[in-house]
Amino acid sequence: MYELGVVYRNIKRADRTATDALAKLGSATVHEAMGRVGLLKPYMRPIYPGCQVSGTAVTVLLQPGDNWMMHVAAEQIQPGDIVVAAVTAECTDGYFGDLLATSFQARGARGLIIDAGVRDVKTLQEMNFPVWSKAISSKGTIKATLGSVNIPIVCAGMLVTPGDAIVADDDGVVCVPGAMVAKTLEAALAREANEGAKREKLASGVLGLDMYKMREPLAQAGLRYID
Amino acid sequence: MYELGVVYRNIKRADRTATDALAKLGSATVHEAMGRVGLLKPYMRPIYPGCQVSGTAVTVLLQPGDNWMMHVAAEQIQPGDIVVAAVTAECTDGYFGDLLATSFQARGARGLIIDAGVRDVKTLQEMNFPVWSKAISSKGTIKATLGSVNIPIVCAGMLVTPGDAIVADDDGVVCVPGAMVAKTLEAALAREANEGAKREKLASGVLGLDMYKMREPLAQAGLRYID
Amino acid sequence: MYELGVVYRNIKRADRTATDALAKLGSATVHEAMGRVGLLKPYMRPIYPGCQVSGTAVTVLLQPGDNWMMHVAAEQIQPGDIVVAAVTAECTDGYFGDLLATSFQARGARGLIIDAGVRDVKTLQEMNFPVWSKAISSKGTIKATLGSVNIPIVCAGMLVTPGDAIVADDDGVVCVPGAMVAKTLEAALAREANEGAKREKLASGVLGLDMYKMREPLAQAGLRYID
Amino acid sequence: MYELGVVYRNIKRADRTATDALAKLGSATVHEAMGRVGLLKPYMRPIYPGCQVSGTAVTVLLQPGDNWMMHVAAEQIQPGDIVVAAVTAECTDGYFGDLLATSFQARGARGLIIDAGVRDVKTLQEMNFPVWSKAISSKGTIKATLGSVNIPIVCAGMLVTPGDAIVADDDGVVCVPGAMVAKTLEAALAREANEGAKREKLASGVLGLDMYKMREPLAQAGLRYID
Amino acid sequence: MYELGVVYRNIKRADRTATDALAKLGSATVHEAMGRVGLLKPYMRPIYPGCQVSGTAVTVLLQPGDNWMMHVAAEQIQPGDIVVAAVTAECTDGYFGDLLATSFQARGARGLIIDAGVRDVKTLQEMNFPVWSKAISSKGTIKATLGSVNIPIVCAGMLVTPGDAIVADDDGVVCVPGAMVAKTLEAALAREANEGAKREKLASGVLGLDMYKMREPLAQAGLRYID
Amino acid sequence: MYELGVVYRNIKRADRTATDALAKLGSATVHEAMGRVGLLKPYMRPIYPGCQVSGTAVTVLLQPGDNWMMHVAAEQIQPGDIVVAAVTAECTDGYFGDLLATSFQARGARGLIIDAGVRDVKTLQEMNFPVWSKAISSKGTIKATLGSVNIPIVCAGMLVTPGDAIVADDDGVVCVPGAMVAKTLEAALAREANEGAKREKLASGVLGLDMYKMREPLAQAGLRYID
Repeated sequence: MYELGVVYRNIKRADRTATDALAKLGSATVHEAMGRVGLLKPYMRPIYPGCQVSGTAVTVLLQPGDNWMMHVAAEQIQPGDIVVAAVTAECTDGYFGDLLATSFQARGARGLIIDAGVRDVKTLQEMNFPVWSKAISSKGTIKATLGSVNIPIVCAGMLVTPGDAIVADDDGVVCVPGAMVAKTLEAALAREANEGAKREKLASGVLGLDMYKMREPLAQAGLRYID
Repeated sequence: MYELGVVYRNIKRADRTATDALAKLGSATVHEAMGRVGLLKPYMRPIYPGCQVSGTAVTVLLQPGDNWMMHVAAEQIQPGDIVVAAVTAECTDGYFGDLLATSFQARGARGLIIDAGVRDVKTLQEMNFPVWSKAISSKGTIKATLGSVNIPIVCAGMLVTPGDAIVADDDGVVCVPGAMVAKTLEAALAREANEGAKREKLASGVLGLDMYKMREPLAQAGLRYID
Repeated sequence: MYELGVVYRNIKRADRTATDALAKLGSATVHEAMGRVGLLKPYMRPIYPGCQVSGTAVTVLLQPGDNWMMHVAAEQIQPGDIVVAAVTAECTDGYFGDLLATSFQARGARGLIIDAGVRDVKTLQEMNFPVWSKAISSKGTIKATLGSVNIPIVCAGMLVTPGDAIVADDDGVVCVPGAMVAKTLEAALAREANEGAKREKLASGVLGLDMYKMREPLAQAGLRYID
Repeated sequence: MYELGVVYRNIKRADRTATDALAKLGSATVHEAMGRVGLLKPYMRPIYPGCQVSGTAVTVLLQPGDNWMMHVAAEQIQPGDIVVAAVTAECTDGYFGDLLATSFQARGARGLIIDAGVRDVKTLQEMNFPVWSKAISSKGTIKATLGSVNIPIVCAGMLVTPGDAIVADDDGVVCVPGAMVAKTLEAALAREANEGAKREKLASGVLGLDMYKMREPLAQAGLRYID
Repeated sequence: MYELGVVYRNIKRADRTATDALAKLGSATVHEAMGRVGLLKPYMRPIYPGCQVSGTAVTVLLQPGDNWMMHVAAEQIQPGDIVVAAVTAECTDGYFGDLLATSFQARGARGLIIDAGVRDVKTLQEMNFPVWSKAISSKGTIKATLGSVNIPIVCAGMLVTPGDAIVADDDGVVCVPGAMVAKTLEAALAREANEGAKREKLASGVLGLDMYKMREPLAQAGLRYID
Repeated sequence: MYELGVVYRNIKRADRTATDALAKLGSATVHEAMGRVGLLKPYMRPIYPGCQVSGTAVTVLLQPGDNWMMHVAAEQIQPGDIVVAAVTAECTDGYFGDLLATSFQARGARGLIIDAGVRDVKTLQEMNFPVWSKAISSKGTIKATLGSVNIPIVCAGMLVTPGDAIVADDDGVVCVPGAMVAKTLEAALAREANEGAKREKLASGVLGLDMYKMREPLAQAGLRYID
């Protein structure tokens, strides 16, 4: 299904201001604001904790054990991008390390989402370059076979189109299609606005059962209390 | 990313004759003919061996533990279709059994590809209804939340657009985009045409090393023979 | 939590007639009849297809890599029992082979459910002795450490109390608490009774959408059809 | 096997003083003191390192993708409790985040053990609310189907009865049946008492071979030294 | 650790007569006869049931997604050999199909053990060519990077030295070092000789408890019977 | 294949100076310097981040659920060694905790690589004793069955011979055969020497495409840029 051996140079990036505003809201709130869709599978984990970023996707399709296209992708990065990489087969090799990170960072990349492995994780943390991956592995890769850059890819079970907004934090990674970013931001902010009041109530001991008025629907569903 | 709560009634199915001709060629040959792309992940396995089918995709997006949309999908099936089902989260529940299979078969479906579980596998085999799934499970599902029918979905790591051609056999499942079916069939037939002669040569003891003229490139790559 | 080094000789077996009647209904129907509970995890698979049995549980708690208690359990088997075995840690060793199967069969056991590995699978099939397991492995075990027989155990995520009814087939394994067997049988038979008529309707082309009157609730949930 | 749709309001909690004293001993020592039983499977991991707690179990049975019962459980929490949650099928969704944690903490809960996913992990760490889970996932859940509160559940392979003592730290999670807490504490303290002297000896270079007098049994088992 | 780019042409094959005699005994008995060692991990499964073979190992080290060395290995096959293949990284691609099988069979190979994927499984079964693998996958491979032939490899966790005897059946795969084949055969035959008598006794209802005189050691270990 | 019940007291350790110099280079660079071989599987992870060590291997073969041989191994440790442990079957039990670590550290061990589980991870971090393992588990082990010390073992898919050099850090674990340590160190240092200049160039915005002169080979491979 993938078109191999092509690099699309002109992609339509999601609105910068709206995309940037998503980082602070986090992956869970953004995913809820989209109607509970858009998440990559939970096996995608940050290589070190505490990062929270958003950016526009530059996509890369890699071949198993071959990171040639990562170098091709580097040239397509613009400030504010997040590189999202998939492989044509399952692979845990270390496709990415400190040298590529230096190059990506110099180009303005905010992070990497890769459905494979990475290495030099200690240096990546020192560089403050955020990565979400399926594995950590010292295993090196070759540069022999073409993939593609900036085609739609499936990364960790989710379709990512070049230019989509990506939000990633300790809870996971969510992809917001470019056309939905503004609306999603709005919904996410609305959701967020309510949370402070709710948190305060719950902290004071009010139960969700009462705050969300769940007692009646629970009773209707047949819940029985036994003393 | 997914549009929820919609059913697209008019989808553009891949060319029937070309799609039907793919079954005999099998998933491996078709995947090679596409340039080694299009495969669903290898965890998708037939629930019983020996099936080999092709057909046009009717897609279903399901919610975890909820098979409501399978009934909605049934109405959209036309003879020659294969239903391809994804779930919005990882789930191994048994979404599909003999009753749904009876309905699907009555509508002309040739099989089911589902990134989740199925049940009644003994009866499904007796009915000769082919299924490729991630799991087998007696676990029942509810009918409470909307998904969608005939939207593009990601099934076992592969993007499937409604109307795409699906080829499935004991080796796995491959998706051929509608626009590529004719060209893929041609390439696959050409590939197949050579195989008989090759097989005969190899059976007579000729080595692939000689038949494919590999000795020189191997030597150039530095292969050393040690006695 | 487990009591180690004990064998309970007197267990209360579920009603024989009702237990025996469950086999024909199968694991999926029985699980539905119980209100969608009781299933062991779907990684429990038959070592060969086509078996469908029910019986009363004799439980065994094993130590990792040690099948000593299987011999102790053999003595506690009565005709109509199914042995259900758990291990105190995760283990895929081959705890059970043709010799133990010969002994179990001689005692009247109808099968084995084991959250570990077994071996001699070819011979077990020739003997027509059904086994559901997590793994198949030649790995042998020692006889050095005590476990227990006929204590409540957790097998593949499900609590099994000695004497409970077990139903197992190609779809999986379900455990019915002794006290619920009669009621479950009744509910399962009622469920089964409807299926023939439903199957006939669906085979004639009637849609589940109409048969189950789903069109209105789907519309109320907001389902939209797009041409 | 599970009773659905019920909330047991009066549970017999394990002795508070003894339960509280278990935290300092840790999961490994407590597990050894019980005779090497009681552990949940090792896939249960803390969402951030360094927590070490004990408490009495309030149990929750959840449905896949549905966290309704978490709100019901909140009301049953008493200071010193740890909530232990299981799901009726395998699920990695994010059932629990900072709002529920705020509520649980306000009720006096000391932590959560959940055989599924959680989210807002960064905030949970800032709140100092300890969680052991199978996954971390932004995936949201619905509130539609009843489970139960304070029934015996199987969590990560272990039976947990409401009121049991739970001990959790970086090594894992152990469940001590209420009736065994006093005896277990005593055995664990005895075990602990010896450790300081042993550690000192080993640190001085004395070998376990000599300290535990293993040379003779090893020789009897046939161990051969080869120079 | 592996030497890359080499083919050892002269390997010392295990004694032919003894190696051939192992097939009938099966992997479990041979593994026991070796002192419970030599097994490959249980994820190695036959691609179709019912095969039982033994032979001498020709080893191949493959690169991820690259089956070039399989063709090099074909030339080194002698009648009675079994090809054992490892990959330098984890990979499930389909390295082997009907054409290579035709070539291997023409050279006299008795089967393939591969710690990766294969395809054309239906044809392989029709050809009666036995394969044990980690996966089944249509995914094709390239021919670009050197591995080695007939060096010691680690396959599914077990060290296999060229010329070692391999025994494989439905229970798994065992590797017998060349120097141990005669002794292992002898021990396996002795073990087998006893089994008939034992099976007869057990079939007549004699318990293993009595046949193996386990009652006393069980009592000494503290086993208690409770009525 | 393994020789059981033996302890080799005299092993040939890799050159100390060269082995010690490998730590600073890290597992990825050393693996590349060896020609991309030698890595243990990536499921081997540090139990806490930030360790980077090298040392000579003392190997231990363990039985499932039995850590007896760890005590035997302790006596064979010399300053500068790293203990590398394998189990004869898959096991996640906690074979190693703070007491054994105290003993190992007193003997001069620099770390432990174990294809199984460990416990007391908080204390191990406080002791600054580095461990790479497959699992963390409170599960205790017995001392009943012999394995071996200082025989060649397969650990996480890699053959480790006693005395080999081990390099481990946050990226994984690599094994360098004793005879290759000097040559590997040289190649790794040469590799490292170039990295500073490369990093500087990349940081200044020079692309890998240009620095590595990839544009021409990419074009020859057929890469197309689309505007």
